Amino acid sequence: MELLDRREIIENLKYLVQAQDRPKLKNILIDIHPADIADIIRDMEIDERAFIFNLLDLETRSDVVLELDEVTRDQLIEVLGPEELSQLVDQMDSDDATDVLSDLPEETAKKVLARLDFKDRAEVEKLIVHDEETAGGIMALEFVAVYTHETVDDAIQKIRQKAQEVEEIYNVYAIDEKNQLAGVVPLKRLLLAKHNQLIRDIMNSDVIAVTLEKDQEEVARMFRRYDLVSIPVVDHENRLVGRITIDDIVDVLHEEANEDMHRMAGIADEEIPQEMSTLRISRFRLPWLLVSFVGEIFSAFIMRSFEATINQIVATAFFIPLIMAMGGNTGIQASTIVVRSIALEEGGTTNRWSRLWREIRVAGMNGLIMGILITTMVIIFFTDDPFFGMVVGTSMFFVMLNAAIVGAVVPYVLHRFNFDPAIATGPFITTSNDVLGLFIYLSFTVGYLRWLS
Amino acid sequence: MELLDRREIIENLKYLVQAQDRPKLKNILIDIHPADIADIIRDMEIDERAFIFNLLDLETRSDVVLELDEVTRDQLIEVLGPEELSQLVDQMDSDDATDVLSDLPEETAKKVLARLDFKDRAEVEKLIVHDEETAGGIMALEFVAVYTHETVDDAIQKIRQKAQEVEEIYNVYAIDEKNQLAGVVPLKRLLLAKHNQLIRDIMNSDVIAVTLEKDQEEVARMFRRYDLVSIPVVDHENRLVGRITIDDIVDVLHEEANEDMHRMAGIADEEIPQEMSTLRISRFRLPWLLVSFVGEIFSAFIMRSFEATINQIVATAFFIPLIMAMGGNTGIQASTIVVRSIALEEGGTTNRWSRLWREIRVAGMNGLIMGILITTMVIIFFTDDPFFGMVVGTSMFFVMLNAAIVGAVVPYVLHRFNFDPAIATGPFITTSNDVLGLFIYLSFTVGYLRWLS
Repeated sequence: MELLDRREIIENLKYLVQAQDRPKLKNILIDIHPADIADIIRDMEIDERAFIFNLLDLETRSDVVLELDEVTRDQLIEVLGPEELSQLVDQMDSDDATDVLSDLPEETAKKVLARLDFKDRAEVEKLIVHDEETAGGIMALEFVAVYTHETVDDAIQKIRQKAQEVEEIYNVYAIDEKNQLAGVVPLKRLLLAKHNQLIRDIMNSDVIAVTLEKDQEEVARMFRRYDLVSIPVVDHENRLVGRITIDDIVDVLHEEANEDMHRMAGIADEEIPQEMSTLRISRFRLPWLLVSFVGEIFSAFIMRSFEATINQIVATAFFIPLIMAMGGNTGIQASTIVVRSIALEEGGTTNRWSRLWREIRVAGMNGLIMGILITTMVIIFFTDDPFFGMVVGTSMFFVMLNAAIVGAVVPYVLHRFNFDPAIATGPFITTSNDVLGLFIYLSFTVGYLRWLS
Repeated sequence: MELLDRREIIENLKYLVQAQDRPKLKNILIDIHPADIADIIRDMEIDERAFIFNLLDLETRSDVVLELDEVTRDQLIEVLGPEELSQLVDQMDSDDATDVLSDLPEETAKKVLARLDFKDRAEVEKLIVHDEETAGGIMALEFVAVYTHETVDDAIQKIRQKAQEVEEIYNVYAIDEKNQLAGVVPLKRLLLAKHNQLIRDIMNSDVIAVTLEKDQEEVARMFRRYDLVSIPVVDHENRLVGRITIDDIVDVLHEEANEDMHRMAGIADEEIPQEMSTLRISRFRLPWLLVSFVGEIFSAFIMRSFEATINQIVATAFFIPLIMAMGGNTGIQASTIVVRSIALEEGGTTNRWSRLWREIRVAGMNGLIMGILITTMVIIFFTDDPFFGMVVGTSMFFVMLNAAIVGAVVPYVLHRFNFDPAIATGPFITTSNDVLGLFIYLSFTVGYLRWLS
């Protein structure tokens, strides 16, 4: 669906909803992908949504629910009874069903769960125990497994049985009698093999798998590293228990990128760009603002303790924003680079000290250039005292150097103590750099005044 | 390969390299994935790298070259002659071959190209004309196409012929006599169909495809939206010309996330965390620092023009860092949300005005809270003059409000004029907010002083 005609489609559909032209609507909707229907529904009034939703067949309804953003989904789910909800959940893959159920209010979830058929309920109960951000939390129970002693024909038979349930099949997993993962057979190989060949003889036994507890970010990294489309999940005894497919990994990658960016900006992960009340958003953002607030109140106290200095050379105050901004930028540049390299490097192989040393060199170089520039500017435009210009320039140099060190070291420290280093790139580092920078700058000025007298 | 034993493996390999124990090394290397070999090689000396590299078979060598980071790859390629390089490139998929060749110095690339076999050369020449960031730029020419009037058996025959060349096959594409894309057949369906069934009868004719010029970000969005593992690429006459697979899309997603984060931090996209000279990095980061510098010099001029005010109440200066920081944070929060929603929303359906209005409400709410907080703090700790406290608080409220408006509007304006809105989240918005915020704050103070006298 191209961008241009989307608004047109929506207008058209809205018109048909008002005209209650069910046959025509059905005709149009049948050609639209559930993801696009979800998008269209999002932009409609609640009663229009319900009208359209009820025209879809069960499977499409179920797909649309999965594609909706949280807010719209919640609004829609409120309208549906537990009976209809359980029908929709019945249609979903085990991992999606679990996600939807765990997002529901507990009471509703219980009611829906009770109405699921036995097999689906058992699956959800099996999956819901895993931490949401682990392999167990994102895996599905839909996969095709064959014994190593079976034949290609047996495998095809199994695929046929499971064809309805397992929508996307890229590989068949080979297991031994103890259900332990023994190998993987890509469909391509199955298609080209002879019908009576043994799975054991055509499988690839160098299979890349993950355990249940593996962090989802790690899993995503493995997909990227080894160019996978799916990965089998095993328990501690190497028994095959689930499968993760690339579409879920794409979502993980997307989430993680969003999370990192939100942390850089001091926004809570939970904040979503759609309808959310002002109060809730405000509450999400306040903590970061408060971090800054507390830090900068310190700045105010520091400046008050240097009141005499500022009174003596009021020009000192003029360059505070400049020096703090340069420190802030340098700190963010250094910390972003370090945070990204912590996130990307899979084993801490590259030398941390060399990275820190590099940031110091870069900041030193840029500090030198900026320091000379500001010294010149101060002397030309602001004062007749070349020494004061040099005080500003020297301060800037050291403030930038300090900011780079703070920016490069703090993420490692956070990482060391198992905090997400990405929070370092947010208001936290900027505020520390502001306080330290101010202190450095004013100390230099005091030193200069002492030297003068 | 787990993180813990990586260092051990490297130590072990280094030892064997020194002992020149070729058979043992080969034995170990054969079980390691090319992506891991690339990683191990990266951490070795140049001569150790070459020694290990020469022990690998041609296909693995070719895979390793693809997995190496740019710097290590360049160093390795320098050692290899055009003859060996062309052998390696011969092994690669057309898209990878094209990427490697277009990264080479022009002279070398020509020599390598001349040594490729006719078919590979033709393929590279066909691909190299497309913009790197479009569907044409990331697609490969390896895919399996069958005519709609052919049978399942014909299709399997074609897969067999191409099995070597096309490593990953998830779908077979159905074309008509004019080579126009008519449908898609997942391998699963092929496997379950009868041998003499016509492709036409089993294909899915609702096929999602992209044209050559489609931007890679758009393509990635489609993969995410429609849960795809591969997508066919067509020309303007709907003729099938290539295929994009999910592994390339995962890389695109990764790149884009990195790019956005770099922009937020004011780092150039080209900066890579590995060996790069201090001077080059410094040069990459200077432009952003200069943007800040110029902006904040303005701040200095503004403050000078308010010199009398600061002289009169020196406490005015104390709260400049605080007010600027709160404005800065609010601006970044607003712009990040807006930038992300511009990047995510595929059609501009959601109302911009409502988003802007929401940011204003949130900033108003937070500004009110912070304003009351700072007023209280100023009165308790800094002055006996409650009115001055209210001046600081009121200023903070308006500075935050203004920052939210700037933060929410600028990305739209940039987007409107075809700039990447992500640059707005960097030093650009922070600096504008600093300057505007300072002006608002000092104006309020002047107003207050006038009212006093």
